[in-house]
Amino acid sequence: MNQGSIYIIPSQISKKSSVNMINNHLIEIVKSLEFFIVENIRTARRFIKKLDNNKNIDKATFFLINKHNRFNFQSEILKTLTEKKNIGILSESGYPCVADPGSMILKFAHEKNIKVIPLIGPSSIILALSSSGLNGQKFSFFGYLSIDIVNRKKEIHLAQKKVIKNDETQIFIETPFRNQKTFEDLIKNCDEHLHLCCAVNLTSNDEIIQTKKIGHWKKIIFKLPKQPAIFLIGK
Amino acid sequence: MNQGSIYIIPSQISKKSSVNMINNHLIEIVKSLEFFIVENIRTARRFIKKLDNNKNIDKATFFLINKHNRFNFQSEILKTLTEKKNIGILSESGYPCVADPGSMILKFAHEKNIKVIPLIGPSSIILALSSSGLNGQKFSFFGYLSIDIVNRKKEIHLAQKKVIKNDETQIFIETPFRNQKTFEDLIKNCDEHLHLCCAVNLTSNDEIIQTKKIGHWKKIIFKLPKQPAIFLIGK
Repeated sequence: MNQGSIYIIPSQISKKSSVNMINNHLIEIVKSLEFFIVENIRTARRFIKKLDNNKNIDKATFFLINKHNRFNFQSEILKTLTEKKNIGILSESGYPCVADPGSMILKFAHEKNIKVIPLIGPSSIILALSSSGLNGQKFSFFGYLSIDIVNRKKEIHLAQKKVIKNDETQIFIETPFRNQKTFEDLIKNCDEHLHLCCAVNLTSNDEIIQTKKIGHWKKIIFKLPKQPAIFLIGK
Repeated sequence: MNQGSIYIIPSQISKKSSVNMINNHLIEIVKSLEFFIVENIRTARRFIKKLDNNKNIDKATFFLINKHNRFNFQSEILKTLTEKKNIGILSESGYPCVADPGSMILKFAHEKNIKVIPLIGPSSIILALSSSGLNGQKFSFFGYLSIDIVNRKKEIHLAQKKVIKNDETQIFIETPFRNQKTFEDLIKNCDEHLHLCCAVNLTSNDEIIQTKKIGHWKKIIFKLPKQPAIFLIGK
């Protein structure tokens, strides 16, 4: 059956970063689309307008995807696709469906034999990993550490075990207001000889990427800005 | 100390893909650089010329990094950087230091307080993961499965356990000539209810991304082309 495709549209990580960092192929695809699956309509509209100032955004249709509204629009999406219209999926920051909602939509697309086409853009996980100097041949992305102190400690110890045993770099993400606490918990609970990389506010002008031994981090004063951060533990 | 920086330059995954898929910021940085750390000089030169046809490539300096030649040029790199020259690092395909050599160079950079600046480009791991429809909130990149049959089976079973227990998507990479064997071993050794995504020749015109239940894969005939592939197992 000839039908529309779903394009995966990575958005910018830092809202302030230049359009120059977005490739023309992605811009052309966004210009051509009228249907979007989005995590937040307001920021999606702003991003699309940034790429195509001439777009009549009021003619575009937005399907909202979030924790509360995951599946009740599958039939609408399917209808759009069977009418041979393409749909773009975009999240608040970086890659949709990576540390973000949206994967259930694409699982559904595969079940219906709908073509999924990923476009090129920034992934804070990959930017942080490649710049960290830590092992990129084997790694795990854990997401957010638990808020509960006991579980958090257990998770850090388990992660550390994987680093020591398999040389598998462990990657965590954190929300800005918990950055300092996470940094302190990691240096408190990890072996002095392991490395910790802090990658903060990637792709912005005030991006920070620093890798040091835990023992070294312990000796200095380091205050993380309240900006989105990635933490990596490696050998 | 005021010194040069190291730029991480992701290259194209498919050599045939359009320059349109590369952002202008990356192109401008490459134009400005005279020093490169590369995995393969011939392909690096070809990629740089593709981005900047006017570049006098014979004036550029290439530091070769591979299995045989990892550390003996650290002093040259350091000399270049202390002379306030920037250096670009690029690998054969996609992100340097992710499923690729190079991370030791960046670990060394962090030790010397050299700034590392990642640029935006394609990562086949992230392109495959985001399009797979499988869980992107928790995942592991394993690299290549063992060639030895017994170890390979053990690795697949261990990966499967992580999917079932933690809903952690497991990602493997494969060289073209072993694609079919890997595909067959995965469907033979995994539970029928799990999903397998095959992502082949990403960003090219003949890109394949298909996710199906193992039970479904078993019932159909699927011949993978001899092109670079990523395999993902998820719930």
